[in-house]
Amino acid sequence: MIGSELSSGLSEAVEAAIRGICERLILKFARLNDAGEHQALAAMFTETGTFARPADPDNFVQGRDAIFAFFRDRPARRTRHIMTNILVEVESEERARAHSLVTLFMGPGNSEALQCDAVLVGDFHDHLEKIGDRWLFAERRGNLTFKSELNRGG
Amino acid sequence: MIGSELSSGLSEAVEAAIRGICERLILKFARLNDAGEHQALAAMFTETGTFARPADPDNFVQGRDAIFAFFRDRPARRTRHIMTNILVEVESEERARAHSLVTLFMGPGNSEALQCDAVLVGDFHDHLEKIGDRWLFAERRGNLTFKSELNRGG
Amino acid sequence: MIGSELSSGLSEAVEAAIRGICERLILKFARLNDAGEHQALAAMFTETGTFARPADPDNFVQGRDAIFAFFRDRPARRTRHIMTNILVEVESEERARAHSLVTLFMGPGNSEALQCDAVLVGDFHDHLEKIGDRWLFAERRGNLTFKSELNRGG
Repeated sequence: MIGSELSSGLSEAVEAAIRGICERLILKFARLNDAGEHQALAAMFTETGTFARPADPDNFVQGRDAIFAFFRDRPARRTRHIMTNILVEVESEERARAHSLVTLFMGPGNSEALQCDAVLVGDFHDHLEKIGDRWLFAERRGNLTFKSELNRGG
Repeated sequence: MIGSELSSGLSEAVEAAIRGICERLILKFARLNDAGEHQALAAMFTETGTFARPADPDNFVQGRDAIFAFFRDRPARRTRHIMTNILVEVESEERARAHSLVTLFMGPGNSEALQCDAVLVGDFHDHLEKIGDRWLFAERRGNLTFKSELNRGG
Repeated sequence: MIGSELSSGLSEAVEAAIRGICERLILKFARLNDAGEHQALAAMFTETGTFARPADPDNFVQGRDAIFAFFRDRPARRTRHIMTNILVEVESEERARAHSLVTLFMGPGNSEALQCDAVLVGDFHDHLEKIGDRWLFAERRGNLTFKSELNRGG
């Protein structure tokens, strides 16, 4: 198994390393998103990268500046993007695809309380590319499956 | 650490590769299940493989044909199986065990809306075996811990 | 990529192995917690290790004995700690940090039913250290973001 070549023409060890990089990229995106780090979020895309959020999958935003503006201008809210079921398919040393599920917990942005208003479940289809020595999102296409309101706790 | 032998008698690198394969198998099962790909789902089991779903842990279905029929004949519904906390224990180059948690979001199968009716939390105990060059499920035993109805959103 | 040195001064392969060990440590902690294995839980900390649970992040419990007593004396309840978004930062061959999200499903401890009372979302900031040949938690600091009550199902 170790050292053998796969359909991508890469060794199992190289594929595993690329899968790890892409998985961490998807987790970092969620973390920057929850932290409101919009500039760093936009920098995770290629120059011509495209993004469509799960709640609006047909509406692509293209390019780092437009993606930054999209996130900056969105109404403030508190979020946790729970990323799971990440499956990365390595196509070459410079290209990969990934599918993941997102469970999004959302609450009002201006609140100090622990109130959660809604939980959404959707997924992301990603195209990832290595530009120079950095892996970036060439395309992030979201899709929404469930949306539920939660009771108010505290 | 790298290159050292573990209690399985395998090197850390070989164990890591097997763990990765088994983790992806568990994620692929969830994805095929959510996609309604029942034939492909049944093909992930060994010839005599057994399956007991979390909601009915004492009722084992045995063999690929029976497992296919079980999934095919189940009432249609929309699902997302969120798989987490996957811990794989490698026993040899051909055998492994895994434990994972599943959070299942469920809605009506005939609906275009985003309505989620219930969220269930359970777990899976798996026995995995390498048959030829493919890893397969020899046993998937589910268990249910929580079942909650959600408010209707949309 | 493989064999190249990172900012930690370690090879990519060594970093990947340490990341895997720390990820599994975080998953094992959740599993032992859900199983009520308080002694084994306490043994995952260094001698002077500290723990602050997400619901009470400023209140650190220090030392294995105190951590064991904390878990033992807590009111019994049924839990599933869903651990996701685990990002490990390797600092050296003996030190790492990790961030993870926790989604906690909770129900009454004395019930045979599937009733879930609350779902909480929070995170953990961990300091991990290798003592001898074992990786342990030197610090686990939790934080709470959301708390919601769920409808009663069954």
